[in-house]
Amino acid sequence: MSPLRRVLVANRGEIALRVVRACHESGIEAVAAYSDADRDARWVRLADDAVHLGGSPAAKSYLDAGAVLRAARESGADAVHPGYGFLSENAGFARRVEQAGLAFVGAPPDVIDTMGDKAAARRTARQAGVPVVPGSGPVRDVDEARAAAADIGYPLLVKAAAGGGGRGIRPVADPGQLADVLPTAQAEATASFGDGTVYLERVIERARHIEVQVLADAYGNVVHAYERDCSVQRRRQKLIEEAPAPDLDAGTRSAICAEAVRLAAHVGYRGAGTVEFLLAENGSFFFMEMNTRIQVEHPVTECVTGLDLVAEQLRVAGGEPLSVAQDAIALDGAAVELRLNAEDPENGFLPAPGEMTAFDLPGGPGVRVDTGFAAGDRISPFYDSMIAKLICTGADRPQALARARQALAELRITGVPTTAGLHARLLADDDLRKGAVHTGWLEEWAAG
Amino acid sequence: MSPLRRVLVANRGEIALRVVRACHESGIEAVAAYSDADRDARWVRLADDAVHLGGSPAAKSYLDAGAVLRAARESGADAVHPGYGFLSENAGFARRVEQAGLAFVGAPPDVIDTMGDKAAARRTARQAGVPVVPGSGPVRDVDEARAAAADIGYPLLVKAAAGGGGRGIRPVADPGQLADVLPTAQAEATASFGDGTVYLERVIERARHIEVQVLADAYGNVVHAYERDCSVQRRRQKLIEEAPAPDLDAGTRSAICAEAVRLAAHVGYRGAGTVEFLLAENGSFFFMEMNTRIQVEHPVTECVTGLDLVAEQLRVAGGEPLSVAQDAIALDGAAVELRLNAEDPENGFLPAPGEMTAFDLPGGPGVRVDTGFAAGDRISPFYDSMIAKLICTGADRPQALARARQALAELRITGVPTTAGLHARLLADDDLRKGAVHTGWLEEWAAG
Repeated sequence: MSPLRRVLVANRGEIALRVVRACHESGIEAVAAYSDADRDARWVRLADDAVHLGGSPAAKSYLDAGAVLRAARESGADAVHPGYGFLSENAGFARRVEQAGLAFVGAPPDVIDTMGDKAAARRTARQAGVPVVPGSGPVRDVDEARAAAADIGYPLLVKAAAGGGGRGIRPVADPGQLADVLPTAQAEATASFGDGTVYLERVIERARHIEVQVLADAYGNVVHAYERDCSVQRRRQKLIEEAPAPDLDAGTRSAICAEAVRLAAHVGYRGAGTVEFLLAENGSFFFMEMNTRIQVEHPVTECVTGLDLVAEQLRVAGGEPLSVAQDAIALDGAAVELRLNAEDPENGFLPAPGEMTAFDLPGGPGVRVDTGFAAGDRISPFYDSMIAKLICTGADRPQALARARQALAELRITGVPTTAGLHARLLADDDLRKGAVHTGWLEEWAAG
Repeated sequence: MSPLRRVLVANRGEIALRVVRACHESGIEAVAAYSDADRDARWVRLADDAVHLGGSPAAKSYLDAGAVLRAARESGADAVHPGYGFLSENAGFARRVEQAGLAFVGAPPDVIDTMGDKAAARRTARQAGVPVVPGSGPVRDVDEARAAAADIGYPLLVKAAAGGGGRGIRPVADPGQLADVLPTAQAEATASFGDGTVYLERVIERARHIEVQVLADAYGNVVHAYERDCSVQRRRQKLIEEAPAPDLDAGTRSAICAEAVRLAAHVGYRGAGTVEFLLAENGSFFFMEMNTRIQVEHPVTECVTGLDLVAEQLRVAGGEPLSVAQDAIALDGAAVELRLNAEDPENGFLPAPGEMTAFDLPGGPGVRVDTGFAAGDRISPFYDSMIAKLICTGADRPQALARARQALAELRITGVPTTAGLHARLLADDDLRKGAVHTGWLEEWAAG
């Protein structure tokens, strides 16, 4: 029996249902917190209780810290699970949850603060002895940026310190562009994050996005659950994720996982987190950022390790130790996740909300579907356009990919356009089959 | 690449789709053979090609060996997968397939013959040194039956030699009943199987149904993939199946699996098969019968071993060796399968065909759904009433059962009554949670 008794699920869609599932499996009641638009949602019906947050816009519901705290108190919850996005990496919210005497199912607020400031995170990684992408501290103006860029080299990126998850990033190909891009990036950062601080980072060309899942408890246990490869990205948003990373040699795997554990231990991490790296073609790798939450792509790790990462989050938040030690975590097989979004391929993949009139899911061996929706549900214009995640597992990568192709053939969604056709074309691609992809690959593929 | 190029799928429903999936994963084309009623079925659409067999009644389509052979030739198939039921254990059909120069994805015809005659199967097991449930050879009349029964002891069962899968069985509590039951059983056996031969078998009270999955190829490799416990039965039909068997001690597991391998080797088995045993309370176990086909409940074995049993069938039928050796087959975790049937709990669980107006599937970690249907499909009165199998896997049995409870809560089927509510009540039962069940348990439970 968990020390937690009743958890407020402060999120929506598939991750809300994922948390409900983990609660039930752990003997914990789950309370759904919902907006107007989500009043009749499937995950709300499947929770043990439900409490209204506010209006449909996220700012009036899932992003309204006061409303979420009120919901937690009203519903008698003893913990809050923020999922991903929304308030999951808001240190102020985490502090208020803890000040209210509730457990925050996430990272310690101070660590969220440090890792949420991308410039501070780079500094911290360097202090911990973890290799970091060559770059600068905060740069205030074009002169400072030029001087720093001369050391770093071009091409480079101007990144918002308060950004993350691929947002707040602008490329600079050569010194001539810096004078234009810097002020634009600063203005955007101010508008998007309320903080205009930016820094520079070297572009590692043809690099792979490799991220390491870490887990830590309050008793000094810090473990990794191996890596994911999330190189298939579009506009810096992940589209396909895998575990383990294809063709990663054992030495690099063990080194990169060790660096992730070192960083997590250095900052006194607690809960589930992800340390993101860029892996260069020459085998060297560099810390990019740390996400102090459960990730969208966490299921591929679950499928190849047998761990239940959300159940581990709940254990740690309840003050229990992790259920496993490092030497009990082994890689078995290969898994690939496809993100299915309601987007219109005829229209630049713009989000295309609407009612799903049919939603027939694939099944059979090695097929897992994570979705918050069922046939007849509306994909709301108020929130992100993800419909479902298809996670396919096999004894090896070719089997996982074959199952993913079959699962796409079985999937039938009507009423909204989706990214399923794009995924089918990607899975037929030779580079993808060979695992020969990098973070710029999808854009080259789309252009070619 | 498989030596097989194109397989005729001579079955319907979830197992037809299961075979289509395995074909695609193995790089083989799948041709669906369909009856009138199944013309627009989901598995037919998902196959690479489709060929019409005949009318809706099984006798005019799935049981019509001539029609199936014609379909195989017409469609250019080089192999026939019979699934389970229908023609899967019809040795004459298997011979005709092979005589037509096609591969039969099943056991060698002579082994089907031997194992299909339950009295011959018992004799064969005894010759192989495998312990057999105390019983008789064929008994012709009441006098012979009385004499045999005096040796065997009561209660006992009168069983049709040509039966199997729980059909053609009548209980006899004491000598007085034998004179009535024997002729009835003989007449039933003649009517059902075209063969009135019956024999007697001792009832092992409070025994568990333990069956061992075996795999064999043409190169002398015979392996087991551990056991399943299928003790939760109603009218001798399995309702819930698990792998591994709960609380089976390692010594008994290894002994029972060794006996299954011994029998399979003795008869020159090839393909996937199941050796069924009764395990008595005192730990002794007895051969019951062998099923020379893929079983409905094969997924629980796949979930705890990582094997793809249907893909192995295809390999062996194509003349390839098994993909794994015995020492590479390990048990990992626990899995439970719930059979969901369109049956009316208000009406003695009689089959209740009709249109499924909604069919929302469960998902998340450890949840696999095998079904041939989608929302809007009709469960046909012409065939068995199974809608879907829910297969839930966890790191251990309590986690698998917790996931099964959650999966049932998520499942929504409207339009036809189902066994889902019965499963939910069974999963809440203390005996079932403890694994303290036997083949008579469900009937006692239902009566209590």
